[in-house]
Amino acid sequence: MEVFEQEFEVRDYECDLQGIVNNARYLNYLEHTRHKFLLSKGIDFVQLHNEGIDLVVSRIEIDYKHSLTSGDKFLVRLTTHREGHLRMIFEQEVIKLPEEKLAVKAKVIGVGVKNGRPIKIDNIPGFEKI
Amino acid sequence: MEVFEQEFEVRDYECDLQGIVNNARYLNYLEHTRHKFLLSKGIDFVQLHNEGIDLVVSRIEIDYKHSLTSGDKFLVRLTTHREGHLRMIFEQEVIKLPEEKLAVKAKVIGVGVKNGRPIKIDNIPGFEKI
Amino acid sequence: MEVFEQEFEVRDYECDLQGIVNNARYLNYLEHTRHKFLLSKGIDFVQLHNEGIDLVVSRIEIDYKHSLTSGDKFLVRLTTHREGHLRMIFEQEVIKLPEEKLAVKAKVIGVGVKNGRPIKIDNIPGFEKI
Amino acid sequence: MEVFEQEFEVRDYECDLQGIVNNARYLNYLEHTRHKFLLSKGIDFVQLHNEGIDLVVSRIEIDYKHSLTSGDKFLVRLTTHREGHLRMIFEQEVIKLPEEKLAVKAKVIGVGVKNGRPIKIDNIPGFEKI
Repeated sequence: MEVFEQEFEVRDYECDLQGIVNNARYLNYLEHTRHKFLLSKGIDFVQLHNEGIDLVVSRIEIDYKHSLTSGDKFLVRLTTHREGHLRMIFEQEVIKLPEEKLAVKAKVIGVGVKNGRPIKIDNIPGFEKI
Repeated sequence: MEVFEQEFEVRDYECDLQGIVNNARYLNYLEHTRHKFLLSKGIDFVQLHNEGIDLVVSRIEIDYKHSLTSGDKFLVRLTTHREGHLRMIFEQEVIKLPEEKLAVKAKVIGVGVKNGRPIKIDNIPGFEKI
Repeated sequence: MEVFEQEFEVRDYECDLQGIVNNARYLNYLEHTRHKFLLSKGIDFVQLHNEGIDLVVSRIEIDYKHSLTSGDKFLVRLTTHREGHLRMIFEQEVIKLPEEKLAVKAKVIGVGVKNGRPIKIDNIPGFEKI
Repeated sequence: MEVFEQEFEVRDYECDLQGIVNNARYLNYLEHTRHKFLLSKGIDFVQLHNEGIDLVVSRIEIDYKHSLTSGDKFLVRLTTHREGHLRMIFEQEVIKLPEEKLAVKAKVIGVGVKNGRPIKIDNIPGFEKI
């Protein structure tokens, strides 16, 4: 199974008044990692949108295990598999560096939409490679 | 069962290049609603933080049912219940107005943390009222 | 001279680790107020984009006078005038309520762009009314 | 004169419905670069805050020259100088790579605040080095 990794560093503006990364920011990290993964497969999220196919998130389950804070470096690890014909599952972990401590664990379900209707993953150009 | 509601309006900067509200923004809406609900019970998230008690999110399950876009008005509906001594559950729905269409459904688990350790909900000032 | 006003309330996620609203968030408040003002004139920022005309910011001067923080209510006041044929000036103030204390003062220069080139304000539908 | 540089890459969630980086996001990029610069001088924005000294922005002048979009790589260039005893000036440029096209030019005025009052730059630990 292929594992994709993207490195990040917490930016101070991502922290809220508790001094830790705000819960919503992790969805930004997860999304950016998915898009970089897709690009590595030749799939451009923006180009697909311009061609009338939108990749959208239909469900996220996210467990917050350990808070990241100012200056922290971390990576987001991603693996994928399919569930039926319509759903692409992204298993993602946010891992604090250098000690590789699990900060967040998430399961993100993505679907393709064309003209307002779900389309089969197999009918999205580039997805045959993942 | 008490139902708390907070009204919102999509702001254009919350939409991403697909022209719809970005998936992470909904966590902002959900959080703001929780904080307003807590304030309505006399619980100030910021004051608690300053007193050394942090309310943090430990898990979110969120289903994206219908995308919001520029100009949309909506409300976030919230109910709460407890799960054991440590977990406060927030059931939240994002509902597009005026047709009351369900846009997002979420279950958010919040816990209290003091000195890096979980504390009982009953030991957080103000929580006896919810 | 017409004065447009939009009311807001600070949301906790807009505050950074200093416990005050992050400097970038004020640009969100200013933008949302401009778009609401334009809508009040029948000008829809999104529709214009879909018709190939983009309203973009070419310059902002912003003075931060007083920090907003959790729970603060405020309004953004806006007046407009033109500068030459190409530039629409938005004079904007962020004013803390209820004491009407000036928090931020800004001058925002907006221009219209079509096919990558500036267009005259007069040639943007709806702008004859402002 | 010392020039500090920080590299970035546009993340899709930073783009708004016009398909370009939203105007407020550049303030995030500029801030992150200032904080990284300060760290390179041994000055930790967060630690200063915890010691009761807040570095805050008092004024920004920003010119938007060229829009960044999905996938763009860029760097933020920074130089500093003082203006009187109280004001630290950050001259910053956002430069699209690889062609080194100027995207944004900004002048940011920062001041130190302690107990709600401005303090001399010289009295902020670490600032003697810049």
